[in-house]
Amino acid sequence: MNESDTTKQKPSLAAMLSVRNGARAVAFYKAAFGAREIFCVGDPGGAVVAQLAIGATDFWVADESPANLNFSPETLGGGTVRMVLVVDDPDAVFAAAVSAGAIVVWPVDDKDYGWRVGRIVDPFGHHWEIGKPLAQES
Amino acid sequence: MNESDTTKQKPSLAAMLSVRNGARAVAFYKAAFGAREIFCVGDPGGAVVAQLAIGATDFWVADESPANLNFSPETLGGGTVRMVLVVDDPDAVFAAAVSAGAIVVWPVDDKDYGWRVGRIVDPFGHHWEIGKPLAQES
Repeated sequence: MNESDTTKQKPSLAAMLSVRNGARAVAFYKAAFGAREIFCVGDPGGAVVAQLAIGATDFWVADESPANLNFSPETLGGGTVRMVLVVDDPDAVFAAAVSAGAIVVWPVDDKDYGWRVGRIVDPFGHHWEIGKPLAQES
Repeated sequence: MNESDTTKQKPSLAAMLSVRNGARAVAFYKAAFGAREIFCVGDPGGAVVAQLAIGATDFWVADESPANLNFSPETLGGGTVRMVLVVDDPDAVFAAAVSAGAIVVWPVDDKDYGWRVGRIVDPFGHHWEIGKPLAQES
């Protein structure tokens, strides 16, 4: 969003990931994916709400609050949304995420549906598919 | 992503929502939010994977597959990611979503953190916050 012009807002959409220990999650997403912090607000109890960006795409990270129907994957035992990260070099980004602490779900490989892609689960239980469309045969 | 140029891919990020009955979910997101279908592939069993867009932002919808760790909110009893939809007229978009079948979690209101925002849950169990930053006092 363009905060300098809130009078006419073009539609935009961003995912907000619920996690346990949002502060650690923000640090992980920076280390694993090179995410940039747009802003981060915390409360005295340590919970945070952070807006991050990878490339031109924003996403949000917030401590879970089951009373407000915001559940972490650890609380529910799985995730209801996975993140699709499209990058120029999936192998390199995948390896960096694993080095930062992500676990391989399945490695990067060429898929018959035309993508080179792999899948990791981050230390907070969110799954990420990291890939790109394969160059089309001409 | 720009499918006409896959040789140099700028990073982009999109959420993939797991649902029961992806075909109905795609129809709902079109009706509720005016989502555009970028593409949609189905298998003989009726499961779909669809890429949609609202404004300039893509997201994905896919039938759940617990064997592949893709769980719908109905299966887990809640959601681990909520979607933040920023629009020029939150009240109108919120009302349209409710008319299309979403349920109000809390109505649109001015929040002390500087947003006008409301929250709905869609018929597939995903939560959406629909709002925009309030104009700043000068």
